[in-house]
Amino acid sequence: MDIYDVAILGGGSAGEQVALIAAAGGRRVALVEERLVGGECPYFACMPSKAMLAAAELRQVLRRTAVSAGATSRPVALDGDADAYRAAVARRDVVAKGRDDAEALEGLRARGVRVIKDRGRVERPGVLAAGPISIGWRHLVIATGARFREPAIPGLTRFWTSEQVYASEDRPGSALIVGGGAVGCEIAQVLARFGSRVTLVQHGAQLLPREEPAIASALAAALAEDGVDVRLGAEVAGVAEASGGARITLDTGWETTVERVIVAIGKRPNTTGLGLERLGIEPDERGGLAVDDRCRVSGRTDVWAAGDVTGVALFTHTANYHARTIAANLLGRDARVDHRAIPRGVYTTPAVASVGLTAAAARAQGHDVAVATFPLERTARAFISEATGALVLVADRRDRVLLGAAAIGPHVEELIGEAALAIRARIPLDVLCDLVHPFPTYSELYEPPLQQLLAELDRG
Amino acid sequence: MDIYDVAILGGGSAGEQVALIAAAGGRRVALVEERLVGGECPYFACMPSKAMLAAAELRQVLRRTAVSAGATSRPVALDGDADAYRAAVARRDVVAKGRDDAEALEGLRARGVRVIKDRGRVERPGVLAAGPISIGWRHLVIATGARFREPAIPGLTRFWTSEQVYASEDRPGSALIVGGGAVGCEIAQVLARFGSRVTLVQHGAQLLPREEPAIASALAAALAEDGVDVRLGAEVAGVAEASGGARITLDTGWETTVERVIVAIGKRPNTTGLGLERLGIEPDERGGLAVDDRCRVSGRTDVWAAGDVTGVALFTHTANYHARTIAANLLGRDARVDHRAIPRGVYTTPAVASVGLTAAAARAQGHDVAVATFPLERTARAFISEATGALVLVADRRDRVLLGAAAIGPHVEELIGEAALAIRARIPLDVLCDLVHPFPTYSELYEPPLQQLLAELDRG
Repeated sequence: MDIYDVAILGGGSAGEQVALIAAAGGRRVALVEERLVGGECPYFACMPSKAMLAAAELRQVLRRTAVSAGATSRPVALDGDADAYRAAVARRDVVAKGRDDAEALEGLRARGVRVIKDRGRVERPGVLAAGPISIGWRHLVIATGARFREPAIPGLTRFWTSEQVYASEDRPGSALIVGGGAVGCEIAQVLARFGSRVTLVQHGAQLLPREEPAIASALAAALAEDGVDVRLGAEVAGVAEASGGARITLDTGWETTVERVIVAIGKRPNTTGLGLERLGIEPDERGGLAVDDRCRVSGRTDVWAAGDVTGVALFTHTANYHARTIAANLLGRDARVDHRAIPRGVYTTPAVASVGLTAAAARAQGHDVAVATFPLERTARAFISEATGALVLVADRRDRVLLGAAAIGPHVEELIGEAALAIRARIPLDVLCDLVHPFPTYSELYEPPLQQLLAELDRG
Repeated sequence: MDIYDVAILGGGSAGEQVALIAAAGGRRVALVEERLVGGECPYFACMPSKAMLAAAELRQVLRRTAVSAGATSRPVALDGDADAYRAAVARRDVVAKGRDDAEALEGLRARGVRVIKDRGRVERPGVLAAGPISIGWRHLVIATGARFREPAIPGLTRFWTSEQVYASEDRPGSALIVGGGAVGCEIAQVLARFGSRVTLVQHGAQLLPREEPAIASALAAALAEDGVDVRLGAEVAGVAEASGGARITLDTGWETTVERVIVAIGKRPNTTGLGLERLGIEPDERGGLAVDDRCRVSGRTDVWAAGDVTGVALFTHTANYHARTIAANLLGRDARVDHRAIPRGVYTTPAVASVGLTAAAARAQGHDVAVATFPLERTARAFISEATGALVLVADRRDRVLLGAAAIGPHVEELIGEAALAIRARIPLDVLCDLVHPFPTYSELYEPPLQQLLAELDRG
């Protein structure tokens, strides 16, 4: 049996990154992955979704603003939505590398990582089984990701998840999307902009339940503007087979028939069937693997967990961050994670980007909170481009630092790093308020609410 | 003679902002402006140029990438450039409010500011003449802006500045642009994308002479890709009248004939003819009014200067910053300006954004410098959108802080605030390096070069 310095269970973003960095640092590394190396992000999630969103955004611009923006004097004669969707899918599949992990595999093998394409589980302490093969490990990294939550909807037998949406060539003429989180909102926008009749059902009172209400409602308005029928505070009561699709009944009594039901109600960490009990490891109450600030599974020095399986901030950038931290520790550095400033994004247009605490979360944690909200429309840049949006800033009155920021508008995913840095480094509000942004940019959006916050704090 | 708490000479961005804030704070304010209240920015510069750039960008997208991005399955049938230019000009003139300052005037008057539309100059200490009227002041704010530098080109008698470009309805079929700074590059891109044959002549070895060479050369390549004939290290030796325009000869011997010559060789502070000598105030060697860190004219407690007239970072956002600082001091707060982190932008696509020192400038100031450069192409977002670009980071090895950042790429004007904050607040590189950016964004571009810098510093 070969013994490795590091064995990695799961080859998604986190596992792949740990493998690459640890191997580059001279460690003997084995990685066990049953499906595609790289995980969902490059093939079924982040990458193809962004390609579809970009195509959909540009199509909407062609349709709606090319003339008013002065790019052309006459309306653009568009092709049919079905043809355009095929063009978008072609681009998507280039971005998703044809859902082929050959390049990722080659990258790992070029660094000397042994990749075993099989189902992995813990055999006993120090030993991992990968199908029929046993491999020994000094350190084990669990990076098994998360899986889609299953809906409990009476009569619902056939549905798509985002994985089918972003891998299929079919464009449903009509769709019911269950779930108003980031994934559901992005799919709703893509399909609506390519001409599908889309209903988005969200059980809670707002889209993006963990974001600022003002931001979530601005997103709902933007989706409605795209033609999405956004139904908040509603549940799917039942689904029945119908000719050409499914007959849907909501608990409000409202009914519709759609070609396709798409379920996007979140994910939960993959911790079952891995033999973790043989290491005495149990998932926490949310189903994830609790880790310390070095990403070691609580109470262990030789077992690490990274990415979605931890249940913390299920994003590719979290996975990469965990991976960098684990790899640094494996290579002898003392690296720690800091989860206070992990940004969140929804890549619709307008985009949503946020970081840190919402006002409600900050209050729940006992902070004495000041909040300032500012409309994007009042920036010069938004006047030029006829854009709408908003920024909400949440500050701690006592410490005079930013606790959270949430924005909706064009390119806000690029400007949220500034708030992330302010939160992460606890920059005093007085300094933030003195920062100058280039005119005319959307980033000037920070200035008025920061001045409001400072004035409010100075009034006491 | 009426006596004002604050008299303001010049009603551009700086003067208007001082007036609005001081008046809101209860001060009696008079503002003297001969031309339009609001200055150049809203009517002849930033605002109309950004409207034209946005139209030109979208036109280029329609022409080049709508199909490859998957927005449509067939090429967009475009109208003629002349028609499209008229559409762009129509939008531009909405953004520039028809070059009418009625709204700005109304805003000032609504706050009780007395606006005198006449030529202003200092009559004697404590008294300003505005045409035939004399007004007394306790504090004087000089905000007279800057004027175009005059070219010394043999035979050149008729030319446009950016002001005519952005106010005229005429689209020259061919143009020679003299000067490769931000203004010249923006005009070159707009005209080229609307079908003009454009030659851009820059006397120095790179465009944007005060920016990182790698960024400037990437911009030159982008303009060339748009069809601009970029000629570096060249001077216009002579201009002669020719049928339909002007015959141009460069010092390299190359010749061309163009419809229009556009001169964009920078601006210099407006300090002459203002009677400043009656206050014993003289411009510094660069022709600007030197100010202390409260924006008081050096050696004075009752005379202030703001914006372009100081000769410091001639941008609207500097003018606004100076104005906020002066107004705060006038209202009894002790506010200071910090010029270390004033960002700079060029709003071409790709855009250029930068802040702080270039590597060369940092070395010239005696810093022990580390530099890292990273290609935008290696971010996931750029892979999705087929974008190119780069980021250059400049760090101080001893203090382990960022001194400068310069980027070219899509939306970099929105992400430069993060670097500005890092420089302004002197955030340790170790903290910057631990900051997580949302995947997949262009802002991830910060991460690899920060890691490179840290690794380099740790090697010593």
